[in-house]
Amino acid sequence: MYRGRAAELLGGIEPGTRVRVHKGGRTYEGILMPRSELGDDRHVVVKLDSGYNVGIEVSGARVEVVEGAERRVAQPPPPPPAAGGRVVSVLGTGGTIASRVDYATGAVHPAYTAEELLGAYPELAELAELRARVVFSILSENMRPEHWRRLAEEVARELNSGAEGVVVTHGTDTMSFTASALAFMLRGLGKPVVLVGAQRSSDRPSSDAYLNLRSAIRVALSDLGEVVVVMHASMSDEVCAVHRATKVRKMHSTRRDAFRSINSPPLGYVGEEVVLGEERRRRSEGEVVADTRLEERVVLFKAYPGVSPELLEWCVDRYRGVVIEGTGMGHVPESLHPGIERALEEGIPVVMTTTTLNGRVDMKVYSSGRKLLSMGVIPGEDMLPEVAYVKLMHVLGVAEDMDEVRRLMLTSLAGEITPRTLPEVF
Amino acid sequence: MYRGRAAELLGGIEPGTRVRVHKGGRTYEGILMPRSELGDDRHVVVKLDSGYNVGIEVSGARVEVVEGAERRVAQPPPPPPAAGGRVVSVLGTGGTIASRVDYATGAVHPAYTAEELLGAYPELAELAELRARVVFSILSENMRPEHWRRLAEEVARELNSGAEGVVVTHGTDTMSFTASALAFMLRGLGKPVVLVGAQRSSDRPSSDAYLNLRSAIRVALSDLGEVVVVMHASMSDEVCAVHRATKVRKMHSTRRDAFRSINSPPLGYVGEEVVLGEERRRRSEGEVVADTRLEERVVLFKAYPGVSPELLEWCVDRYRGVVIEGTGMGHVPESLHPGIERALEEGIPVVMTTTTLNGRVDMKVYSSGRKLLSMGVIPGEDMLPEVAYVKLMHVLGVAEDMDEVRRLMLTSLAGEITPRTLPEVF
Repeated sequence: MYRGRAAELLGGIEPGTRVRVHKGGRTYEGILMPRSELGDDRHVVVKLDSGYNVGIEVSGARVEVVEGAERRVAQPPPPPPAAGGRVVSVLGTGGTIASRVDYATGAVHPAYTAEELLGAYPELAELAELRARVVFSILSENMRPEHWRRLAEEVARELNSGAEGVVVTHGTDTMSFTASALAFMLRGLGKPVVLVGAQRSSDRPSSDAYLNLRSAIRVALSDLGEVVVVMHASMSDEVCAVHRATKVRKMHSTRRDAFRSINSPPLGYVGEEVVLGEERRRRSEGEVVADTRLEERVVLFKAYPGVSPELLEWCVDRYRGVVIEGTGMGHVPESLHPGIERALEEGIPVVMTTTTLNGRVDMKVYSSGRKLLSMGVIPGEDMLPEVAYVKLMHVLGVAEDMDEVRRLMLTSLAGEITPRTLPEVF
Repeated sequence: MYRGRAAELLGGIEPGTRVRVHKGGRTYEGILMPRSELGDDRHVVVKLDSGYNVGIEVSGARVEVVEGAERRVAQPPPPPPAAGGRVVSVLGTGGTIASRVDYATGAVHPAYTAEELLGAYPELAELAELRARVVFSILSENMRPEHWRRLAEEVARELNSGAEGVVVTHGTDTMSFTASALAFMLRGLGKPVVLVGAQRSSDRPSSDAYLNLRSAIRVALSDLGEVVVVMHASMSDEVCAVHRATKVRKMHSTRRDAFRSINSPPLGYVGEEVVLGEERRRRSEGEVVADTRLEERVVLFKAYPGVSPELLEWCVDRYRGVVIEGTGMGHVPESLHPGIERALEEGIPVVMTTTTLNGRVDMKVYSSGRKLLSMGVIPGEDMLPEVAYVKLMHVLGVAEDMDEVRRLMLTSLAGEITPRTLPEVF
């Protein structure tokens, strides 16, 4: 229930009622949403027919009930309609998509469970039978390998018990790490696992949550058999892109189309329908196994002018694997060579990636790169540094010996290495 | 002089002669270049009229001297023509632009001095009186702060002794670091300082060196008063972009248009003429001072899921400044908060940037960011992580106290902070 000044304005109108709110010469018509959408007593929230929620400050506002309009109840969600009995599991992990604004401070806090989130968009239940539950609720910067493990197990459980696909709502900051981790850990995956988030919290009028969530559910029902990230494809609120888990990266701090596929085009797009390219892995039958073995003692080491060789030596003393974010085609200052050589001598694999993100490493071109290759550095091909980091954790967890580590790092296990980088993909 | 099989093919034709080389049904007409262009005795090099050098393998090739053609001598370069007496200094530091291919191994080695490089393109002398010399000759991954200092001093010397602009030939891997360092160190700069490189060595037919170098010289003569990077604007060999030193980043490992301005559009473009926007600092008179004070004990610390808090603690023990490459709008795992708090308590500034590169940090939106702000973390606005790293070295070198460090880090000293990030720049 609304309270305070918002309750005064509404004068007993129940959430779920179709209303018109007039304010400052503008009129907002739609379904009055429940108060849990909002953190204070000064706003009412109306879901417009476009699917957007608008928060309207109450001062100077006037509300009327739309005569003869269908009376809809927004929460609790309606019982599953005839969606062909197709089940999509929605697993909540926290993040902006499940947050709300504290209007007193302007800050955003985790607030909604996955169920509440779906309840805010009741029309999503027309797409599929949605089974929502919370796995954990954290801001994604606090996601750790132990969370990846737990999530992989939960996803496998859902897929093995009848879900046609899984949607994971997740904070955007580290979404690509989790996506990669799931891609490496889910063996035998033949169904869509879709990570989705929002750049603006769900209770904001400008939130990208609705389109992202709707698109994610559509992708979860599609002919796809891999882990993907679904987020806005452009600034406009019409189409989402489907990015392969191991090729995607958050490339803008705030834009709704912040996520970009790097070194390969997106697998597809989602508007009113899902359009997927030939590159994707298709849906298939079979049990999914979560192989959650990870060697967590891996470091992602950034090489740059002035970096201290002692920092690398410290890492070699403490870690079991090193992924270097080098420069250009895979170079590091020569001052790091002794540390790299020692790591390799001690059986600690060193994988080279590039800080340019786009393009692939090619260490045969320059004498310095050839020297690193001759030491035994494993070229990361066109893997993103973050993906190589997650992959090395996985590979060190599952490989029997160093030969297998090398072989697996050079093999594309989940689409993370493209055979040839197309120069036009940039 | 050519030797071996190449000498046999040429039968005494001297470099500088206009020739036609027929091979495999194709004909290459141009000026025979001197042998120093090439590392073996199996190729001859012809400079086509387009300005490109083509290396032609001798087997099956036939050479004829073009009858009646003007006989040009490619090296040494002709004496400075009437270019209005305008002097551009060209300082060599090494890198691909000054390298050649070892055709035996396919590897690329540093080979040319700046003089030799200009000698390979004699028509460049028509643009200005070029004063070329080598400052040092290293691959750019080995560039260290001591090289930035020396280069700043050399650039200031050239500008204070009559040069209208300075071109610095540089390896591309760390070019943006050096560009930023010069931008912060050159006080009172009112002339163009242009860093330029190549993605393919100058003796390769596909080299981007000629257009980049010609464009750099043109920019060095233009109405500009700041440090810039000039490199190919697209895959085609027609136009270069002029990037502000503090806004540019190498974003592809191999493409000739690898350099991109981030969070602001390029300052301009160069084809047959130089077109610069209003955002640029214009040319002005006055002495340039190289303020080479740098605190080298600064670390660029990457924050990501699974990063070890002990790694940060080690850094806080050893460094005088920390730049964090955080996630999203400027977040880090909470496990790093104690290390950050200790750094700030001990008077070690901590600056937050984002791994998304595009967009700016905004730490007021989420409670976690607000906590970091309340500890005293300095938001890096829309500075690239690498630029904030170089800037913090500079600021710690020149500032009197922590208040001044904070004030300078939040002030745009060389265009590194844009007042407002335009969302369309992505």
